[in-house]
Amino acid sequence: MRGVVMVKPGEVTVEDREDPRIIEPTDAVIRLSATCICGSDLWPYRGIEPADRTLMGHEYVGVVEEIGMDVKNVKVGDFVVGSFVISDNTCEICQAGFQSKCVHAEFVHGGIGTQAERARIPQADGTLVTTPGQPDEDLIPSLLAASDVLGTGWFAAVAAEAGPGKTVAVVGDGAVGLMAILAAKELGAERIIAMSRHKDRQELARFYGATDIVEERGEEGVARIKELTGGLGAHSVIEAVGTQESFMQAVGATRGGGHLGYVGVNYDVQIPGIQLFFAGIHTLGGPAPVRRFLPDLIQMIWDRRIDPGRVFDLTLPLEQAAEGYKAMDERTATKVLLTI
Amino acid sequence: MRGVVMVKPGEVTVEDREDPRIIEPTDAVIRLSATCICGSDLWPYRGIEPADRTLMGHEYVGVVEEIGMDVKNVKVGDFVVGSFVISDNTCEICQAGFQSKCVHAEFVHGGIGTQAERARIPQADGTLVTTPGQPDEDLIPSLLAASDVLGTGWFAAVAAEAGPGKTVAVVGDGAVGLMAILAAKELGAERIIAMSRHKDRQELARFYGATDIVEERGEEGVARIKELTGGLGAHSVIEAVGTQESFMQAVGATRGGGHLGYVGVNYDVQIPGIQLFFAGIHTLGGPAPVRRFLPDLIQMIWDRRIDPGRVFDLTLPLEQAAEGYKAMDERTATKVLLTI
Repeated sequence: MRGVVMVKPGEVTVEDREDPRIIEPTDAVIRLSATCICGSDLWPYRGIEPADRTLMGHEYVGVVEEIGMDVKNVKVGDFVVGSFVISDNTCEICQAGFQSKCVHAEFVHGGIGTQAERARIPQADGTLVTTPGQPDEDLIPSLLAASDVLGTGWFAAVAAEAGPGKTVAVVGDGAVGLMAILAAKELGAERIIAMSRHKDRQELARFYGATDIVEERGEEGVARIKELTGGLGAHSVIEAVGTQESFMQAVGATRGGGHLGYVGVNYDVQIPGIQLFFAGIHTLGGPAPVRRFLPDLIQMIWDRRIDPGRVFDLTLPLEQAAEGYKAMDERTATKVLLTI
Repeated sequence: MRGVVMVKPGEVTVEDREDPRIIEPTDAVIRLSATCICGSDLWPYRGIEPADRTLMGHEYVGVVEEIGMDVKNVKVGDFVVGSFVISDNTCEICQAGFQSKCVHAEFVHGGIGTQAERARIPQADGTLVTTPGQPDEDLIPSLLAASDVLGTGWFAAVAAEAGPGKTVAVVGDGAVGLMAILAAKELGAERIIAMSRHKDRQELARFYGATDIVEERGEEGVARIKELTGGLGAHSVIEAVGTQESFMQAVGATRGGGHLGYVGVNYDVQIPGIQLFFAGIHTLGGPAPVRRFLPDLIQMIWDRRIDPGRVFDLTLPLEQAAEGYKAMDERTATKVLLTI
């Protein structure tokens, strides 16, 4: 089969790889219907993380082709969506809703790599969620978004306790930030401030539910959020960039006692303890437990209540993955879908 | 009147100071019944924070002597307990329970200084809480503890979501750590692990409710907590030391999706963002909103249900404050009460 390999930072190829097969009795093998490139795939691409013939991709939707003998919840032919972290969905941590910290957690990125025609999914019973039937073609982008970018944005909004009566500020207008706006709206937030300086993304932010746009960044951005919230700061702040500046901007924009949800940080971010302390805020972050939200997200997509698939603004065949990476790196695309 | 002044780091004197008087119509002047020395007073004492003829002390109980014309909730003669942060208790932030981030917040330490015979308390209506009557002499240490160390430990336990069915780990066996143990027990925690290597404090930890003692620190301490919790880490971790090592120990000891409450960090603590991110935990910290808890804490003390006053293991007259600072600095005392 064909699959994406990052030979080294900046060098992406599509190569023939061995077809995946069942190894553990809890595995499934799926044939992908579509996959995509994640903002976090740019970290190795830009050399922020290592890349050495790394199997890329961790977002996936597709049809089950084969199951191990212990798999009970999915069957051959099912259309499934999975998270970017493998989870058994039964351990104490999963049951508490933190499947990305499952005792069997394993990142799909690196070892598995779903920018490919097929993929072996460990812990299939816990990881995969079946759709109510075979989806219409036009739903596939949205279902694929649920696999990471929507699930992550949703978690960020839940972590920030977005909800009725709340003012939510979203730092970052990438795909996750946009999905967090969608989530904050669905969760009933009263006011959603998108921090964005790109016209096209501001437009998409408004489509997904942003009520206000703030173009300022850093301390000026914080001052603007304070100004818009009677000097107090936002109840809920979502950090969806992951740099030192954006993280501290998010801390500063959160009111005392407010909630900060963050879903990605670069390796060099150092949070001054004293600044976090005197902010007096709740924080919750980490790789999103997307699995917790998948059943609900799939249903909302199935019912055509939400349209996260609009976040994909470039579609390419798998063979042209390198072009997709380049477009995202150069910010000419927000998020790239790869057809199989 | 007499009051404590820190001339410079390490140099504490008791001097004649001008008697406080009403400045704002929302002020009250109280005559202190007792005051005490806080672990955080050691920061300037040790030169970690500046000290330049600083008026010391932020814990206080006493009798109202004079009130400004706008004060309605307390009257002359009332016995009152206040928090170490002034708050109006009516603004949006206070109403959300974060009085230490009140729009009128002001630290008692520095500008006011309650290691003295009298003190002016701004925002008296919001800040001061009256006791049900004049307290018996033996209740005064406990009421004084409520002013900061008990209120702070209680907040830490609430921030860590200590409660029924939870395993709580407490990093630090100082006064705040001990009070956090008391709080975790009162909040119904199933298991309370005190991280302590001092025999006398281990004893007090057990008195207040600790079920397990862990003497290891740092990575070894984390490994021991994991071992005691089926490899998962504690549901709730309370950080009551404030160093780099103790903070990261607390992060490491918290299970994925668990809660970390922290109530003090040194100026040099830097939290590696990526480590906090991959921990996947909730955090809540900051100067404790003691005011939120004061009415309940006072009632529990009044009913003799809790005995936080036992945390004071040295009592000295105000005039011997310097000796008290020395004892706490050298760890020959956990917490020093100063009689007026």
